Amino acid sequence: MSYQIHIGPNIRKSPFFEATVADGVRSFSVYNHMFIPGHFGDPEGEYDRLINGVAMWDVGAQRQVALEGPDAAALAAYLTPRDLSGTVAGQGRYVPLCNHDGILINDPVLLKLAADRFWLSIADSDTALWAEVAAREKGLDVRVFEPDVSPLAIQGPKAIDVAVDLFGDWVKELRYFWFRETALAGIPLVLARSGWSKQGGFELYLQDGAQGSELWRLVKEAGGPHGIGPGAPNDVERLESGLLSYGADARYQCDPANPFELGLGKLVDLDSGQDFIGRAALAKIRAAAITRQRTGFFVDGPPVAGNQHPLPVTRDGAPVGRISEMTFSRRLGRNIAVGLISTSLDVAAGGLSVELDGAERQVTPAPLPFIQPG
Amino acid sequence: MSYQIHIGPNIRKSPFFEATVADGVRSFSVYNHMFIPGHFGDPEGEYDRLINGVAMWDVGAQRQVALEGPDAAALAAYLTPRDLSGTVAGQGRYVPLCNHDGILINDPVLLKLAADRFWLSIADSDTALWAEVAAREKGLDVRVFEPDVSPLAIQGPKAIDVAVDLFGDWVKELRYFWFRETALAGIPLVLARSGWSKQGGFELYLQDGAQGSELWRLVKEAGGPHGIGPGAPNDVERLESGLLSYGADARYQCDPANPFELGLGKLVDLDSGQDFIGRAALAKIRAAAITRQRTGFFVDGPPVAGNQHPLPVTRDGAPVGRISEMTFSRRLGRNIAVGLISTSLDVAAGGLSVELDGAERQVTPAPLPFIQPG
Repeated sequence: MSYQIHIGPNIRKSPFFEATVADGVRSFSVYNHMFIPGHFGDPEGEYDRLINGVAMWDVGAQRQVALEGPDAAALAAYLTPRDLSGTVAGQGRYVPLCNHDGILINDPVLLKLAADRFWLSIADSDTALWAEVAAREKGLDVRVFEPDVSPLAIQGPKAIDVAVDLFGDWVKELRYFWFRETALAGIPLVLARSGWSKQGGFELYLQDGAQGSELWRLVKEAGGPHGIGPGAPNDVERLESGLLSYGADARYQCDPANPFELGLGKLVDLDSGQDFIGRAALAKIRAAAITRQRTGFFVDGPPVAGNQHPLPVTRDGAPVGRISEMTFSRRLGRNIAVGLISTSLDVAAGGLSVELDGAERQVTPAPLPFIQPG
Repeated sequence: MSYQIHIGPNIRKSPFFEATVADGVRSFSVYNHMFIPGHFGDPEGEYDRLINGVAMWDVGAQRQVALEGPDAAALAAYLTPRDLSGTVAGQGRYVPLCNHDGILINDPVLLKLAADRFWLSIADSDTALWAEVAAREKGLDVRVFEPDVSPLAIQGPKAIDVAVDLFGDWVKELRYFWFRETALAGIPLVLARSGWSKQGGFELYLQDGAQGSELWRLVKEAGGPHGIGPGAPNDVERLESGLLSYGADARYQCDPANPFELGLGKLVDLDSGQDFIGRAALAKIRAAAITRQRTGFFVDGPPVAGNQHPLPVTRDGAPVGRISEMTFSRRLGRNIAVGLISTSLDVAAGGLSVELDGAERQVTPAPLPFIQPG
């Protein structure tokens, strides 16, 4: 069964919205209150371009939360459990954000633009609201706002060729998560070596929302010789690569999880003395040890179309874990999934299953990622 | 052009999701990271039921933010500019919420369940994140969380008959926005006289997410003799009635507006001495006087299908306002809209227009509501 989505004014449009419509987008989802393309009518071709070529994605819905002012660095350090002391301007960091109970509420990339200027490039929750009230209640001298910044991603092994053609050879020297402020035909942007896949690539952080169609056109034109085509963040690839999807794998309201459970424990700095939101709770969680942890799963049986809901993993009818998302991997020829599993479980004993569309399927825990980036 | 939406695990399902699928939902939107029905394939019939009969809506996406504990009342008072001092248990209040700059960030109904127990029944922003960090940074002794509560609305002039059949004659005495904790066939719920229309009705706040299909079935069965049918919050009716839609008419990230501009100034209590988030900013805004205000508009020309984006209102090419949403009203036989307009404008001089689908349309400001509730 397929359902329509109405394009109305209550959900925001990305600056690339019109360009994606012109290029035949067929499906949208909503992320940060903004339409985000789902696919362009050719899911297998879009996957193949990501794995073997280059794809261009409207990820404008990956909104930015800007921190600007004398206390911007102090606020950044207070918002995340990660130690930012070695971070320099031009560098990005993957930073879990937790609430005061130590529950993950977003997992953005932090871009340090200057000593007093940062962006959080966020997953799907209203992080600006949260960061702003924290800053104001603490009396910090920092402005928290959403700037006119919208990323366009180019992802896949040939993304480097497109980036070189667009920006020059210097992009080859850009390290992963590092970025540079630059321009393209007069369009101001930040070019970062990043993106929500493990196939390599870049994100072009457009800094003028009026020029979305023009930037899309320039990237499409430069990518033409390299076989570029439109696509969208790809659930199959992210599951193969073991990427975390905040919103699917965890969401603080309904599927609360802490960074230790999610495999992000090494990003929690409880040793430096830096204060941050959730510090006391995370110290307790670490001391008590976690009772479940992130894992992959193989799922037996014929190829699955995917799951609409998270699914409990059971043994002898008792819940022992949870699958958040599953898919069929063509590269592996198997159904794969990610989720959480009890740390006290004797996994080797087998006997784990999920119920999918009324039938039991055997599942087997597997280490992540399923496929190492090439 | 119509677009699909994928039903995946990254967006939450309401407890009524399966029931709406069984009843033929054709379109979804996303609200508070949850699917919400758009329509069931018969928009005109669904509108007619709301105006002349009774409709049932899955508004589970209207999530609750619970405040519980010794400082719950103190937190509630700190979160909203509205004076809550006269509010008693069993009473609901429409409460604008603002950030520290006095910008509206949500406009929930606050339900006071007990002296130390409240729900905020929220519009589309992550208010729990925001309220929780405010509470914790202030050191208040209150738990902020999302409870297992999901409203099902029955709306329309015959909703009262359905409610009487379900709950008994006492519901006739329930005043607007008041509520009572009760049960239906053992299903725990809160029955409130409320809902996002001006056609009258009730919201059944289901308190057990596992019983969504059963509650839907009970309401459908009781409503059968009264001609009940499925529907969804209705943009035509809300525009006719002048209801505010947070997300369409204002959104703090992209279309920031303060309560004075939005016609909510009388709910801002700057006189009692109560401290609340945004108090200093709102005092300044009031002292300086606003430069634009909420208004309706008539839009000339043939019936419009609606607008995808907010539209600037111009005079002689200069922006003087903004239309957030427009529609054709069958009851009025005219196109109507809501938005904001400059307070310094000589409206009687005319000459206002918007550009819609490449053509200029004359617009005329009009008081809200367009149609008084019957």
